[in-house]
Amino acid sequence: MAQRTAHVHEPYEIELTGPRTPIRADQVPLRAEFTHESGQAMTVLGFWDGERRYLARLAPPLAGTWTWRTTSAAPELDARTGEFTAEPAPSTGTHGIVRVAERFHFAHADGTPFRPVGATVYNWIHQDEELRSQTVDSLSEAGLNKLRFMVFPQAGGYVEHFPELMPFEKTADGWDVGRPVIEFFRRLDSLVADLGAHGIEADVLIFDAYDRGVFGLNDLTEDQDAAYLRYLVARLGAYPNVWWSLCNEFDQMTDRPTERWTRAGELLAEIDAHEHLRSIHNWVELYDYNQPWVTHASIQNGFATETFGRASLYRDVYRKPVVLDEIKYEGDTERWGRLSAEELVDRFWITTSSGCYASHGESFVTESASLHIVEGGRLRGRSPARLGFLRQVLDGLKVPGLDPIDKWDDPACVVGRPREQYLVYLGREAPAEWTFRLPQGHDGDRLEVGDAFEIQIIDTWNMTIATAPEQFVLTDVQRNDAYATGNNPLALPAGEAIALLITRA
Amino acid sequence: MAQRTAHVHEPYEIELTGPRTPIRADQVPLRAEFTHESGQAMTVLGFWDGERRYLARLAPPLAGTWTWRTTSAAPELDARTGEFTAEPAPSTGTHGIVRVAERFHFAHADGTPFRPVGATVYNWIHQDEELRSQTVDSLSEAGLNKLRFMVFPQAGGYVEHFPELMPFEKTADGWDVGRPVIEFFRRLDSLVADLGAHGIEADVLIFDAYDRGVFGLNDLTEDQDAAYLRYLVARLGAYPNVWWSLCNEFDQMTDRPTERWTRAGELLAEIDAHEHLRSIHNWVELYDYNQPWVTHASIQNGFATETFGRASLYRDVYRKPVVLDEIKYEGDTERWGRLSAEELVDRFWITTSSGCYASHGESFVTESASLHIVEGGRLRGRSPARLGFLRQVLDGLKVPGLDPIDKWDDPACVVGRPREQYLVYLGREAPAEWTFRLPQGHDGDRLEVGDAFEIQIIDTWNMTIATAPEQFVLTDVQRNDAYATGNNPLALPAGEAIALLITRA
Repeated sequence: MAQRTAHVHEPYEIELTGPRTPIRADQVPLRAEFTHESGQAMTVLGFWDGERRYLARLAPPLAGTWTWRTTSAAPELDARTGEFTAEPAPSTGTHGIVRVAERFHFAHADGTPFRPVGATVYNWIHQDEELRSQTVDSLSEAGLNKLRFMVFPQAGGYVEHFPELMPFEKTADGWDVGRPVIEFFRRLDSLVADLGAHGIEADVLIFDAYDRGVFGLNDLTEDQDAAYLRYLVARLGAYPNVWWSLCNEFDQMTDRPTERWTRAGELLAEIDAHEHLRSIHNWVELYDYNQPWVTHASIQNGFATETFGRASLYRDVYRKPVVLDEIKYEGDTERWGRLSAEELVDRFWITTSSGCYASHGESFVTESASLHIVEGGRLRGRSPARLGFLRQVLDGLKVPGLDPIDKWDDPACVVGRPREQYLVYLGREAPAEWTFRLPQGHDGDRLEVGDAFEIQIIDTWNMTIATAPEQFVLTDVQRNDAYATGNNPLALPAGEAIALLITRA
Repeated sequence: MAQRTAHVHEPYEIELTGPRTPIRADQVPLRAEFTHESGQAMTVLGFWDGERRYLARLAPPLAGTWTWRTTSAAPELDARTGEFTAEPAPSTGTHGIVRVAERFHFAHADGTPFRPVGATVYNWIHQDEELRSQTVDSLSEAGLNKLRFMVFPQAGGYVEHFPELMPFEKTADGWDVGRPVIEFFRRLDSLVADLGAHGIEADVLIFDAYDRGVFGLNDLTEDQDAAYLRYLVARLGAYPNVWWSLCNEFDQMTDRPTERWTRAGELLAEIDAHEHLRSIHNWVELYDYNQPWVTHASIQNGFATETFGRASLYRDVYRKPVVLDEIKYEGDTERWGRLSAEELVDRFWITTSSGCYASHGESFVTESASLHIVEGGRLRGRSPARLGFLRQVLDGLKVPGLDPIDKWDDPACVVGRPREQYLVYLGREAPAEWTFRLPQGHDGDRLEVGDAFEIQIIDTWNMTIATAPEQFVLTDVQRNDAYATGNNPLALPAGEAIALLITRA
């Protein structure tokens, strides 16, 4: 290999020529160990890319000189070496892989906080190019920053597009996972890269609970699953915007014991040298997100986001970031998909004031008798713009994340970081005035008399932010709460869906 | 040993004479294998009971002939054998050990459902006899059926009684766990038996997070903990009313890693041949109740019981019975202990309509500057009688337990069993009328047009039950809900805390 320039946090690829007869993908064709000049090393799986072409990909986490060396059972691919230099990430570029930060939150590899305000288009990659682009453009315009989509095609209700490409070759015996369809996976590469270019994380749903025998991809053996998983991780692992989700509604696959999902998750953790986020998403039975392979909880439960004090309970249970990845949809279909935009936006703010995150989905029946959550396209609902606005508010936070300040005791569910910044969401109908009060909480700095705060009055529906005319200064600090008795109550636009962002001056 | 008559589900004891020098309790002095005529066998640990006296205890689960044989490193205690006959449990006697039933509920060994409506007196066994008896009498009169108490003495605020007996001999080096104080443990035996005689389960808090160095029992090594645990299980395991709880507010012991608690729990599961219920209770960090050794979640979180739709989330997470074993107290102290009786009773009914259970505690400051939750005595609050009434309602259920019928989708949080029996709690202020509606739910029989229901109108505060004057007959059965449009709405005593028990006729 000739030396090439690479960038930190961006995929760098080495290409090798393998034997005349392709190595089947149910064997790992090669491994490549990349070693940074500091001594830090990462070993990634290589993969077959058609004909005699084999690739190994790395997103270098550090700038500087990297050397690499392969191991393989095939002499052509074994003991190959090379070297390249990784330049620092360009200032306009990616911030790197998103991982867990501050226990309940997320940050890119370079430390930049990431607040997921995601979307859902299950069958996105199986649509035609125009629809796919429209989907990404529309999400990007709205300001949504994560997309949940399936690798395998969706079957069942509301699905009108049948895939032109399938992931594996088909034989008389069924799918041959050892022979991936290169065109399929190259498309997947480019779609993930395109999301990245639009600032959207790719929440990749690896297995498919909606096949139900239509395509037969639900009938793979556990060994076949593992071969596919290795191939997928080898292929996509160097894209910095990848998140892994084993399955959407995993428990719809009633013939798979939970232990099989756990083994798949553990394999994923073992083989992904890039350490992307890992989770799995439920239907009616929750997975045990306390399993060590799980990085964050990815939960379907709209009920938990309907009112205050519910979603936060999951934080205590899992002690990991909690993403409510399906909270019912804005639309006009069944009861899982007929929220008003106002209701859905309210749920996002309630979720935020529970110290959790949520994902959007839209389920108006489209001209093709499908739904946006299935095929994508242009968003037509009124919630996406408001969710983009929420994301702006989150991205403007001074603190890395919002945590309940006085969990289990604060009826107002104030979140934030003690003595730094607080968010109070007042629900869909704000009162005409709000009397300043902050909870002390158990951890962090304690509030003191004289502490002064600025308040931004956020209209979550009308998407305006107004600064309160005066600062609020603490005069009365008690064991559990603190008050600004020298200030008059804050006047509010009564009846609107108002949140208050309170920042220490 | 002479043959003696025994009864099913009651402690039967064999007594042996050991070596002149007592075997230290940090070794297991003997094991006794009991074999029923059917071949079923149970091996229990024996224990030292002072001087040369060694005991092994069994609560025989089956009537008929049992033989036993001991093994011991001490020749005096080894290979001893005997036989006895277990008579059926007398009709007035115990129903046997309480274990998990129907996934989220409890039942005695003979199948009788057990619905915990428990109480809490941490330092109960360390009071004088009069106060101890008063405590039990008062709980029993109120109708409470479980008591949480600690083996080790409590230290700290509100504790005015210092123990006259400690569990171990003290040496210059500290507590000698190898030398239990027999008088202490005999008292414990008799107190547990006394609870049983009053129909109260003994929720035994094994370790003590409130010692804080006052007595030094928080400084035992893990080996000492294990020796004590073996001794306690050997002693109390044959009492049918025992529940094990490793600790109250375990996470107050910040120097103990979670893994140590897990190992203690696993040891408990291993050595307790009687398979009593096992759990552990939290302060601010939840234990992982998905651990296999845990039989049910025992959670402190009053917030989860304050309003609808919270506590039930724990059921999904743990897939085990959920007992909210501390939901704040009726009293006049700090914010953890100043609920009104009305609030506490309301929380119990909300917990019930979440498919969970709760425990009572009372924290009015007493004449001795203590609290009922610390020292016991006569209950003075207004909630206990209402909780006894709740227990009567639960004990009168036709179904083994109440489960959310349409979890995550039913704003009314109706619980019960589909097409059999339902409970709807309307909160502290009932409306003047209630329009009949039942959710279909996902499992069990589906409602059909023509199904007829009787309704009992339960006034949870005034403790009355009235039967609705007419049956309600389903006329309109939809996918998710069913209605009785031929009936007028049910008239209710508006403003009262009403629950409706709806039973298929």
